[in-house]
Amino acid sequence: MSDHPPPPDSRLSPAAARRLSEYLRFARALTSIDGTVSSVELAGAVGVSAAQVRRDLATLGHLGQRGVGYDAAGLVAALRRTLGVDRRWRAVLVGVGNLGRALLKYRGFADHGFEIVGLFDTAPATVGTTVEGLTVEPVSALAAAVGRLRAELGVLAVPADAAHAVAEAMAAAGLRGVMNFAPVRLRLPRGVSVVTVDLALQMEQLAFAVQFRDPTG
Amino acid sequence: MSDHPPPPDSRLSPAAARRLSEYLRFARALTSIDGTVSSVELAGAVGVSAAQVRRDLATLGHLGQRGVGYDAAGLVAALRRTLGVDRRWRAVLVGVGNLGRALLKYRGFADHGFEIVGLFDTAPATVGTTVEGLTVEPVSALAAAVGRLRAELGVLAVPADAAHAVAEAMAAAGLRGVMNFAPVRLRLPRGVSVVTVDLALQMEQLAFAVQFRDPTG
Repeated sequence: MSDHPPPPDSRLSPAAARRLSEYLRFARALTSIDGTVSSVELAGAVGVSAAQVRRDLATLGHLGQRGVGYDAAGLVAALRRTLGVDRRWRAVLVGVGNLGRALLKYRGFADHGFEIVGLFDTAPATVGTTVEGLTVEPVSALAAAVGRLRAELGVLAVPADAAHAVAEAMAAAGLRGVMNFAPVRLRLPRGVSVVTVDLALQMEQLAFAVQFRDPTG
Repeated sequence: MSDHPPPPDSRLSPAAARRLSEYLRFARALTSIDGTVSSVELAGAVGVSAAQVRRDLATLGHLGQRGVGYDAAGLVAALRRTLGVDRRWRAVLVGVGNLGRALLKYRGFADHGFEIVGLFDTAPATVGTTVEGLTVEPVSALAAAVGRLRAELGVLAVPADAAHAVAEAMAAAGLRGVMNFAPVRLRLPRGVSVVTVDLALQMEQLAFAVQFRDPTG
């Protein structure tokens, strides 16, 4: 599917990929007037050691020079390539309730190359309505629509009790990845990746930080 | 503020705390008829090695026995104590738009001990309305309300351009932790912890998994 060479290490761990994503997030913000960003600055922003930053970025090739820092533009390009986000991704959104509507308005997706190209819902009252310029289709139309829309990813924003059935329909329709907001653990066929956004888990991390750790921002 | 002894290692790293939270999430689901859960099962659910599980859980005390597994009830209690979630937390929600309303309906918060006890918004049309049984107050009332409501945490669900000013008001009002949904990096005074839910970053992790990794579910 990809028209560029694979990254240096295609078996990057999820934790390492997450760190690279965080370096990418801050690399632009931390760029100095001379166009460089240092491992110390990235370490401070992400909350890891500078040595960890240097180890992680060493896998991307020759980007930095001791005492000078990384060329920021080159670093951003290398991180985007390694993470596979140096291209646009077309996604459908299933579940056009409050959360779905909030996600549709979320600028961060488009800013990072993710385009919502289709809306689906099970509620008859919602199907046929237009939201943010897109007409909501029934979930039963998903299988036919995914190919027409050239969508690869799906965002699942339905209530927990509907999540399993809808996720299976998304996998059967040919989507390759599902971003799951339902507080359930999805089991999908091999070949379909899932990232679950577990809001309760993130709230627990906040409670932990408040109670036991120095606040780090 | 806490009425129980500190955990064995109060300097647990954020990554380790996150793993403990994930073990906690799966410990109940994976409990066998005999009331035990194994490091191999937890490792499979969370996506780390069984050795990592055993190292992490060794810091919690004597919970497991080689070849038998962990006593699930004891493990859940120890994880909740270590993470500081063996108590209830009172939180306010600032920003009662689509995302805020979706978060209010999200059952996972209450299920994990987080109670939303107050709603705040800047929009005059929203202030004074009742949502999920709570009356929306103006953000200017936050400082007076936090003490009255005995709230410690805040959920920030306002648009990006309002996020900094509202977050500063939340810190000034005495909240100790902010869960930030705005796609901005907040800089708050020391003493206020922040967890940012970066949806674009999580979408990038999904794109990475789809493109380069074996799907793991």
